[in-house]
This record gives sequence, structure tokens and C-alpha cells, in this order.
Amino acid sequence: MTLRLHNFFRSSSSTRVRVALNVKGLSYDYVSYKLRDGETRAPAFLRMNPAGLVPALEREDGLVLMQSLAIIEWLDETRPEPPLLPGDADGRARVRALAQMIACEVHPLNNLRVLQYLGTAFGANEAAQANWFRHWVSTTFDALETQLSHPATGRYCHGDTPGLADICLYAQVWNNKRFEIDVARWPTVSRIFSALDELGAFRDASPPSQPDAA
Amino acid sequence: MTLRLHNFFRSSSSTRVRVALNVKGLSYDYVSYKLRDGETRAPAFLRMNPAGLVPALEREDGLVLMQSLAIIEWLDETRPEPPLLPGDADGRARVRALAQMIACEVHPLNNLRVLQYLGTAFGANEAAQANWFRHWVSTTFDALETQLSHPATGRYCHGDTPGLADICLYAQVWNNKRFEIDVARWPTVSRIFSALDELGAFRDASPPSQPDAA
Repeated sequence: MTLRLHNFFRSSSSTRVRVALNVKGLSYDYVSYKLRDGETRAPAFLRMNPAGLVPALEREDGLVLMQSLAIIEWLDETRPEPPLLPGDADGRARVRALAQMIACEVHPLNNLRVLQYLGTAFGANEAAQANWFRHWVSTTFDALETQLSHPATGRYCHGDTPGLADICLYAQVWNNKRFEIDVARWPTVSRIFSALDELGAFRDASPPSQPDAA
Repeated sequence: MTLRLHNFFRSSSSTRVRVALNVKGLSYDYVSYKLRDGETRAPAFLRMNPAGLVPALEREDGLVLMQSLAIIEWLDETRPEPPLLPGDADGRARVRALAQMIACEVHPLNNLRVLQYLGTAFGANEAAQANWFRHWVSTTFDALETQLSHPATGRYCHGDTPGLADICLYAQVWNNKRFEIDVARWPTVSRIFSALDELGAFRDASPPSQPDAA
């Protein structure tokens, strides 16, 4: 099956899907969109994904999957090995919750279109946008660090197998680097990021490793 | 099993979990927190959920589940009937993506703590906060309306069984009402909301039906 990933190297939710594809050992065509140039607002893209957002994963049969966590759950269901979620319901609830702390509390507030709109609506300059970004990262990463001081945390967020929560953590820490947020403030997050960064599936999905990296 | 739902009547993500509990026919203890008074920032609450957010679902054995979508997936896995997700992987991907359009693109930008922080960071008054709210609702609901003009949409978001996407849609439309957003702008969304509002499991979970409703 040929998969085509519509994405952007620096997009955090794109990074998530790239990691998941790598973990599952799936190759894909890489299609890049310059977000700052509005390329995902072009009519052809909107016909594919009316939300005008990357990532979108296009299948050979034309079906377009959207929303990074939904795409990753679909990958995990249709290609179960290696798994990205634990085998028990309580474990899955924990991993999904950790992932959603990032995917629902940090990233939605900090993506490019939101930062740009802060400029439009409130005249926020680059420094004010950066402060906004750091505020929401700090708020949730403080809580995430506490949640990770839990016996279920292992080498990675949940035991010793990298999964959905790790994918979100890894992508967000890369995003944080752009705003000079030192992840060392959160020792467990920092330790897990370093462990993940040693894995080829993660490292190869990181923003600087992509063909469209500036 | 006794379940205790830590929540607030007007919290959209709380509404989601209340609907899911009702659909599954589960009773629960209702514990209310006044968000504006910072009750979820109190030390006792933070020990339970370090993120300081509702909803949190506390089980009899003390385990606390957090993040509304993770809680709902857990409910669906542990009490499969009636299902909140379709039986096929493609269907599940579609429903999760529709749910995440609301849970990851609208609600995170529009909850109380974000609106309050717009005041702190940019001096946004009530009118400016309302404009911000409406901007993000419109952006995603326009796309949602287009996504719902799809053959898989039935009486509800996906076929004729209410599920996870409907839960998010229903809760968000209630949230929109507070900011006088007329859902009639989106005819399919509007039709589905009305159909859901006829169901006791949804109606009984709506903000005005809760014991702490103002």
C-alpha cells in the first residue's frame, strides 16, 4: 500500500505521524506544504482536508485520514505490531491521557495559526507570542512531570516500550526548542526525550531530518 | 462499581463525559467545582489531577482517569454496549477525527483559563474574548460542516448511532450558546444537534440539567 503524508517538517502533529509511520515500518511519500505561505489554504488542499491542516495521510484508494491522534490510532489498529498502546484498558487510558495533555492542552494553543492570530487580534509581536507559547508549555509540562513520577513510567512514558504518549512528548519537545524552552526544567520529560531521541524511528522523524527542513 | 465525576456543569469536556456515562447507563456521584473560584487549583484537587482540570473520573479503587476523550475511550472499552465508536477501523478513524476537530482545534482555545489569560496577557476585555471564541468556533465549524456533507453521515455524525463525534459536537454547541453563536449557520451540525438533544442520555448531560447550574 502506498501512503502519502501531507505535512511540514516543523509541524508538531506532522512529527507525531512520521514517528508512528516509522515505528510501524511503513514507507510513505513525503509531500511538504509551506504553512507560512498558506499552502494548506489552497483550494486543492481544502478539497482534500477542509480544515486546511496538516498532517493528512492519503491512502492509495483516495481516502484521506486527518487529525494526528486519529491517524495514529488507525495505524495501530490496522498494523498492530509493534503496538503504540498498552494491552490493558487502564494502561491505554493512562497513555491516551498523557498524549492528550499535550495534544489538547499545549499544541492547539501554540501552533502557527494561533500565534499569527494573536498578532492580528491583539497586536502581539514576536516576543509576546513567544511568552504565550512558553506559558502554555510550562503550565502543562509542570503537570506532565508530576504525572510521570508514577510507578508505571519506565524508560519511556509507560513502561519500556515507546508509545502514543512518547510520540506526543517527543514532537512537543522539538517544538519547544524553537522557543528556547529548556526541557531540563522537567527531569523526567528530559530523560524520556533523550531516550526516545536514541531510537531511529523517532530521530528520523524529527524536524531537522526532513527534506523540507530550512 | 461506584464512579465519582469531578466536573462543572458548564465545562464542555465535562459534558462529554456525562453524556458517555449516560449512554453506557452508568450512575455516578456528581462532584462540582467552581472553576472561576479556582477550586480545581486547590492542593487537594491537584493531588488527584496535577493538571488542575475537570473532568476527572475517580474509580472506587482510587484510580483517577483524566482527559475527556481518554475517559470516554476507556468507558467504551470496558463497557462495550452500546458502542461509541464504529466497528470498522476506517469508521473509527473518521469518528475520532471529527471528535478531535472539536477537542483539539476548538475547545482548547476557548476554555475559561485561556479566555482569562487573554485578559492577563493582552488586556482582552469580555468583547475581545468573545470575538476570539467565535473566531475559532467558526474556523472549525465551517470545516466540520463540509466534512459532514459525506455519505457516512446519517441521523448523527456517523450513521444512525450516536457516538464519540456526536458527544463532542453536542457539548461544543452548548458551549457556543453562551457566546450567542447561532448554529443555524451550519445546517448539518444544527440538524445533528437537534437530533441528539432529543435523546435522554444527551439532554440529561447538558449544562442546564446539572445540579450546579446557575
